[in-house]
Amino acid sequence: MDKLAKLQTEVQKQQLDVAYISDPEAIQYLTGFGSDPIERVLALVVFPDQEPFLFAPALEVEDIQNTGWTHPVYGYLDHEQPFAMIAAHVKERVDHPVKWGIQKNQLTVARLQALQSEFPTAQFTTDLTPVIERMRLIKTPDEIEKLRVAGKEADFAFQVAFDTIAPGKTEADVAAEIEYQLKKRGVMEMSFATLVQAGKHASQPHGDTAMNKIQEHELVLLDLGTVHEGYISDASRTVAVGTISDQLQEIYSVCLQAQLAAQAAVRPGITAAELDRIARDIIDEAGYGQYFIHRLGHGMGMSEHEFPSIMEGNDLKLAENMCFSIEPGIYIPGVAGVRIEDCVRVTDDGCEPFTHTAKTLQNILK
Amino acid sequence: MDKLAKLQTEVQKQQLDVAYISDPEAIQYLTGFGSDPIERVLALVVFPDQEPFLFAPALEVEDIQNTGWTHPVYGYLDHEQPFAMIAAHVKERVDHPVKWGIQKNQLTVARLQALQSEFPTAQFTTDLTPVIERMRLIKTPDEIEKLRVAGKEADFAFQVAFDTIAPGKTEADVAAEIEYQLKKRGVMEMSFATLVQAGKHASQPHGDTAMNKIQEHELVLLDLGTVHEGYISDASRTVAVGTISDQLQEIYSVCLQAQLAAQAAVRPGITAAELDRIARDIIDEAGYGQYFIHRLGHGMGMSEHEFPSIMEGNDLKLAENMCFSIEPGIYIPGVAGVRIEDCVRVTDDGCEPFTHTAKTLQNILK
Repeated sequence: MDKLAKLQTEVQKQQLDVAYISDPEAIQYLTGFGSDPIERVLALVVFPDQEPFLFAPALEVEDIQNTGWTHPVYGYLDHEQPFAMIAAHVKERVDHPVKWGIQKNQLTVARLQALQSEFPTAQFTTDLTPVIERMRLIKTPDEIEKLRVAGKEADFAFQVAFDTIAPGKTEADVAAEIEYQLKKRGVMEMSFATLVQAGKHASQPHGDTAMNKIQEHELVLLDLGTVHEGYISDASRTVAVGTISDQLQEIYSVCLQAQLAAQAAVRPGITAAELDRIARDIIDEAGYGQYFIHRLGHGMGMSEHEFPSIMEGNDLKLAENMCFSIEPGIYIPGVAGVRIEDCVRVTDDGCEPFTHTAKTLQNILK
Repeated sequence: MDKLAKLQTEVQKQQLDVAYISDPEAIQYLTGFGSDPIERVLALVVFPDQEPFLFAPALEVEDIQNTGWTHPVYGYLDHEQPFAMIAAHVKERVDHPVKWGIQKNQLTVARLQALQSEFPTAQFTTDLTPVIERMRLIKTPDEIEKLRVAGKEADFAFQVAFDTIAPGKTEADVAAEIEYQLKKRGVMEMSFATLVQAGKHASQPHGDTAMNKIQEHELVLLDLGTVHEGYISDASRTVAVGTISDQLQEIYSVCLQAQLAAQAAVRPGITAAELDRIARDIIDEAGYGQYFIHRLGHGMGMSEHEFPSIMEGNDLKLAENMCFSIEPGIYIPGVAGVRIEDCVRVTDDGCEPFTHTAKTLQNILK
């Protein structure tokens, strides 16, 4: 059954009159049409026994038709009233829709109120967020294939980085070269701004790539990913520029042990929290627990913000074809930062990583 | 008065107990701290007579302190309950907050409900969206200076493009070169993915840069922008690759006339709708009205989704230091697309464009 049909079945099961899907990522997942409408309105409206429709800015309509969408698509111009138009299209199909399902984790309060003013007696209490999240949690073979391709692009990007990093180059030089070489191959979209952080700059796990010059005897942290047909890669490597101090060697080695142990422990049935604990225990026992200040990993697929979150308190049991990152990090303020990350798919007895670049410490001057 | 103090005054005037600011862009505007928290919680909480605080993911706290934020900042770890923690910090300052102001255009239904469950008897009816929009509508001298710098970067990008475009190169090659040259100069962030569309591909105004090869006798449409200290540029140029047909010359010439006429008409007191009409009339009268399928322009500053929207139905009178794009376009399906765009600031008697690249039709093979 295709994804849209699955959602329709769920709409029937929950006895909803209308499902109003507003998250562009969910719409891409369900329809194949990807777009960032920014402040404009994009919605997929699904009914229990009627044809669904897309509602979109007029200038997206041609693109939608080109993706092979065979159901109706209605466009609106910037000066028109999108919610009045959506209401009219809904009423063509259902006289008095009462039970609406919405995406509470994405729909804004303002837009909910716009819908409520069109349908003042309707109920907007049903949250479809968990339905969509559950659907997206288990990847299909088609999705997995796209994740593999994106992973290969990330491996290529690491090779570009390793060939480019040198003392005197800036972090920005390295990021520029990575994205340039990818674009020349037609990989136009990164899943996030390529992160290159040298030396102590890498101790800010949410810092940006800057004009800092790379120096010998430092670690350089790389975090990057690409988008292939809507599906992302996301991976981190940390490399040494020449010889490094014992302290840097130690934090690298501890982080790597944690990453490898967690990756080796992945199998159906283990919980997300248990996996986080395996990596965290290794870093704690080595005395660096206070410097590992984020969860072990995040779910991934169309973005980095899907389920499952690999963290303390998440007792979700991992199952085959869930996909997520395993990315322990050790960030010592003013000294250095290390992060090592692969995204993986749970297999029937372990996991398949999407990136294959070596994780043993590389000295890029050798 | 600084921006945060202005907001506090508004909070007092509206007799709110708490203002809950959740839009990362508004937070950057008010505090100087810019971040994309993705699914994590980031909030600025402002009170009528107490010190404000920031609430953020733990891994952002160091960055926030580095920006010079002198008020409290509270971090949370991924497995903690952010809304319970926010509630506790609010209650330290106000025993029983009743009247909350929220950003209805950004706050999701799920997060509003999380706040409501912490404060079940409070009222969340006041929308601060218009307050923030009104503040952001008129740019300060400091903001204008950043927009000028971003504009210069866009002009540089056009020169890179003009030097790169050639028959046989792909759209992707041109975009790669633009972003590479910018990154080498330390310009790390584009305001959106650089758009290069050749020939008939440009008739999809929301299409992407692709692997299409540029051919002689075509038009190539460029739309690009950079981010400088949180402030963006955004500009479009369309250039000819060698000689072009009379039809292409005509649509270029009509689009240019519309752009120049609208830009020349900008002054305090004219309405957004009137400005849109000036450009639209020219394109309508030339017989291409059906191919100009978007508004004339959007507000800009920290992003392309701010006020004022330059479109039919918006009777807002333009005033000094409002900033927006003027970007008429003509898109003939299967033939070509033209768009010419500058962003401008309203001055006391006209406007100042932020980009200065020539708009007369350039033949890049000459």
